[in-house]
Parts: sequence; structure tokens; C-alpha cells
Amino acid sequence: MTITLKSPLDMHLHLRDEDMLKIVAPLSAETFSAGIIMPNLVPPVTTIEAVKAYKQRIKDAIGDEEFEPLMTLFFKNDYSYEFLKDAKEHISAIKLYPSGVTTNSEGGVSSMDIEGLRSTFEIMSELEIPLCVHGETNGFVMDREAEFGSVYEQFAINFPKLKIIMEHITTKNSVDLLDKHENLYATITVQHLYITLDDVAGGMLKPHLFCKPIAKRYEDREALLRVALSGHPKVMFGSDSAPHPTHKKECCGCAAGVFTAPIAITALASLFDTNGALENLQAFVSDNAQKVYNYKPQIKEIELVKEPFRVQKSYANVVPMFAGEMLSWSVKE
Amino acid sequence: MTITLKSPLDMHLHLRDEDMLKIVAPLSAETFSAGIIMPNLVPPVTTIEAVKAYKQRIKDAIGDEEFEPLMTLFFKNDYSYEFLKDAKEHISAIKLYPSGVTTNSEGGVSSMDIEGLRSTFEIMSELEIPLCVHGETNGFVMDREAEFGSVYEQFAINFPKLKIIMEHITTKNSVDLLDKHENLYATITVQHLYITLDDVAGGMLKPHLFCKPIAKRYEDREALLRVALSGHPKVMFGSDSAPHPTHKKECCGCAAGVFTAPIAITALASLFDTNGALENLQAFVSDNAQKVYNYKPQIKEIELVKEPFRVQKSYANVVPMFAGEMLSWSVKE
Repeated sequence: MTITLKSPLDMHLHLRDEDMLKIVAPLSAETFSAGIIMPNLVPPVTTIEAVKAYKQRIKDAIGDEEFEPLMTLFFKNDYSYEFLKDAKEHISAIKLYPSGVTTNSEGGVSSMDIEGLRSTFEIMSELEIPLCVHGETNGFVMDREAEFGSVYEQFAINFPKLKIIMEHITTKNSVDLLDKHENLYATITVQHLYITLDDVAGGMLKPHLFCKPIAKRYEDREALLRVALSGHPKVMFGSDSAPHPTHKKECCGCAAGVFTAPIAITALASLFDTNGALENLQAFVSDNAQKVYNYKPQIKEIELVKEPFRVQKSYANVVPMFAGEMLSWSVKE
Repeated sequence: MTITLKSPLDMHLHLRDEDMLKIVAPLSAETFSAGIIMPNLVPPVTTIEAVKAYKQRIKDAIGDEEFEPLMTLFFKNDYSYEFLKDAKEHISAIKLYPSGVTTNSEGGVSSMDIEGLRSTFEIMSELEIPLCVHGETNGFVMDREAEFGSVYEQFAINFPKLKIIMEHITTKNSVDLLDKHENLYATITVQHLYITLDDVAGGMLKPHLFCKPIAKRYEDREALLRVALSGHPKVMFGSDSAPHPTHKKECCGCAAGVFTAPIAITALASLFDTNGALENLQAFVSDNAQKVYNYKPQIKEIELVKEPFRVQKSYANVVPMFAGEMLSWSVKE
């Protein structure tokens, strides 16, 4: 059995920079047509020059492969109308990080108070720039995303023309918000469709499955699977693929992030097939995102075949999800 | 400021065997008068010969230091009256592991059905041998102990003469059971008085704070602190100190267990002092256990002084809790 995916899109991707960029960017380009590139470099991407320069570095790292980096700015609440009007032609979205919730988010927003954010949110609404949000509070690790739910609702109600994308959602609570507010959308990762906290910390501790937001309960994964597998139109694939070198994953304090870029498409095909939902995979990995972002990707067809595929143990010094394990679908060479 | 602890007891201790035993046993003997030694070796300790031989190996590892290993048997539901009558003079308790819930528990009990356990429980009641229990189900990692609560209650109600010790409790739910059933007791570790899941997986992932049961929520820690700091008579200190060599804590799948033996006493003194409860430390680390186990330890006085103490980064190849950090109390040399 084979299927062909048209222009798969990764709507949440960390490519990092320098040596790591050179390792991971070509791997995304192998199976994706384009990807939303997260701006949490050190320092974060906050100027048009930085956007353009980072985009060029990504293109250089990718070489001949067809892949469009869809750039983003790191949210700041003092971006002016003039700046964002100029920025708009270079970016696809702006990413908001609450301060301190994840890797390189220290320069993020310290208060979710609407009034402090109103000016930028109104400009973004007018210019039709989507807002991507890492939706976690600084609360207890299992409650952070659910606690952020009321913030999402405040954003949605107060800025009805702003497209708000709840990034890498992990809870039933966030899934429920999709049908409650017209202007809320979501991305979901591979790993949150596969795992719960039991996989991370229920048996042995698994640093390579540790990410933020942390994987939650079975009922949360069920809710995520329901909207992903059904091709819910407000739900997009976003890998949140986040490479860390081995020594940062297996030391006394291990960094958050699962590296899925090179196996995301085959892992999704395996999952959708197992659940009898292959016909909705195209919507999840591309069509929904095209509509939400009003984006027409270059045509890039990825042929997948139902043949066992053993995941590499590592890519350079980065260990992927399912390292050394078998998946039931392969990318046809 | 100085205090003197009389005969501190560690009522839940893993000393392992062979090289590891030689590293860790002397460290417990430095500050404890005696300890309940867990029987989950490979194979588990299920015969009198094994108890006696293990006890001798522990004594050999400790050398001249005064420390009494209080031995235990690994629970089996086919121990006979004659066997346990003979065993009684060599052991202080029998430890029940549900199958598969923690390190080396594969040979544990697969069903908590009362009828399958009745025979051994009745013999233990008659012979007054306490039952120590690792109380977790095979459910979702955050719910396992609370789910086991109904099992504890069934045990307590059906075997009113059996002393049942809920080992290393981590939840408010277990704390509440202490005052509900006369024959339920508990041990609490150092780490569960200090940390929550946020410390394990809320920032960076911390393999050296990963243990079973996993640390829970703030309200759970509050409940544990309340009974420990108040010297609740049914609550005993049990470190559950569980050494693993570094390579088993920092690899792709990391083993469960926090190594606290060498720092337990100073960490407890620091904690009790910070909370204005130093006067109850003697009850928590010795007096309560003496009454629960009807045990008179040899006299061993440990003098502690309020002077900063930096925890070693490792003991041979084992990393302790608070490695490299400062504690506010020291053992007086």
C-alpha cells in the first residue's frame, strides 16, 4: 500500500542555529514542503534583519532541497504599526512566549494582562498576522496548560479578529477550546499523539521523551487523537521538533524537547493507519494549515509505503524519537 | 546551635549487594543506629539462609561501625506457619511488592485479592510480624498510590491485628488513611518532604530526583510535612535511599531511586529547623519507629551542629541528593 502526501507542512519547528541547524534543517526538508520556524534563538529574533539573516542561514543549510522556511518574530509588546507593516512580508506569524516557560524564553512576556498586549494584538489583527502562543503558566507542571486556558479565552474574546494558534496542545481542556472560540486554532506534535506521562516517567525515566509541555494523561491523549485523526479543520500538525545534543539530554539536568523532524511523517502515517484514519492525514499535515495561514505551498509530493522502517539511533549527536525502533510506514526513495 | 539525636533509625533502606553494598552500607552506618533492609535483591530474599547470609555481607561491608541491619523477607503468599515461626527471630518485617511496580519487583504479588493473601497475613498477625507494603497499582504514574488506597483499607479492615506499614508515602490520600485505620502506619523519605514533580520534571528533567513513587503535588507534600514535622506517632523516617551507579541514572532510560543515605540526617535537621520543628525530629527519626516495631536499638548518639555543609558531588559512582549543594546543618565529627 502506498499513499502520496501533497506538500506536508510542519507548522511548529525548531531548527536552532550554526552546527545544529546544518544537521537538522536538511532532515526537515526531506519530507516537508515548508515549516513555521520558531524564533527562540539566543538572542531571540526580533528584527527584520534578524529574520532575513536567519532565513538565509536556513536556506544555506538546506541547499538544493525544496523547503520554504516560514519565518516568525519573537513577540514583544512594543512592536509599532510601521515595523509590523514592514515585517509582514517577511514573516508568517509572531510567537508569544510567557517568560521562563521553555527553552530560551527568558525574554518572553512576563504578564498576560490584556492591556499590556492590546497595542500589538490590535496591530496584528489589522495586518492579519497570526499569533502563535506557547500556552503555559509557571504553575505545577501538570496544570500549566490547563491554567493557561483562561488566558487563551481572554485573548480570543478580546481580539476576535486575531488568529490565535495554541501551539503544541497537550490537554483535553485545550481541545475543548477549539470549538468554543472561532479564532482559536491549534498545532499538535507527533509525540503527544503517541505518549503520556507514563511513557516519560512511569517506568524508567526517558529523557528523550521529555518536552514542554510535558505529556499528560490518557484522557488528554484521547482528546488529541480524536481531533487529529478526524482531520478537525482547526488542527494542524506542528512537530515542535527540538533537537538537543546528547549531552544536554542525558546529563544531571536534561533539556526539554523531542527530536521528531526526520521521522514525523512516517510516524504519523503509521499512527493514522493503525487508527483507520489515513484519509485524514493530508488534512492534518497540510490542508488545514494552508487554510488557517492562508498559505499556498510549493508542490512537493511525498510518497509513503507501508513497509517497515527502522529509525536511526541518532542523527549526528541528536537522538530522535523512536530511536532504534520499527515504524510500519516508510518514505519511498 | 547543636542537637543530639539518639539512635537514628532508617526504616526503609536499600543497600544492594556486592560492590555497591560496600560503597553505601558504611555511609548509612555513619549516622544511623539501625535500618530496615529491603529484600528486593536478584533473586529476592525469601529464605532464612538468604536472610542470614545477606545480613553477614552487610556486617562485613560495615566493619567496626555500630549499625544493626534489621532484615526482611520478600513477601510470598505461600510462606508456612512453621517457616515464619523460624524466620521470626531473624527478621523484623516482611515486604510486599505488587509485581512490576519498582526495581526488582518482578517476583512480587500479581493480585491484591484478600483471599490469596489471607493465609500468610493471618500467620503474620499471629506471630506479630509487621507487613511493609510498596503501595502502588500499575495505573497512571500520578494516580498509582492513591489508587492503592482502597487496597490498604481492605488489608487494614480484614486483618486488624496486622501492623501494616505504608512505605514511602507520597500523597495526602495516604496521610489521611493514618488516622482512619488504627493498624496503618507509614514511612516517609527525605526527598518527598523536599520536592514535588516540579523539581523532577518542571524545569530541566532531573534523573537524580526520579524515584518510585514519583514525587507528587504541592498539596501532597504539605500533607507529608504536616505529619512528619509534628512528630505524628504513626509516621517514621525511612529514606528509601536507593543507589544506582551514574550510568544507570543518566542513560536513555534511567532507573528509579534517590540516594540519600549519607545526607539524610543533615537534610532532615535542616528541614525541621527551617520549619521550627526540631523538637520533633527525634520522634520522626527514631522514637516512633521504636514503638511501632517494638524495637530497642543500641545507643548511638549523633551530634548535629548548625554549620553549613556542602554535599559531596558523588560517593564513588553514586550521586546523592543535593549533590554539590549546601545544607545548613552538619554532623559533628
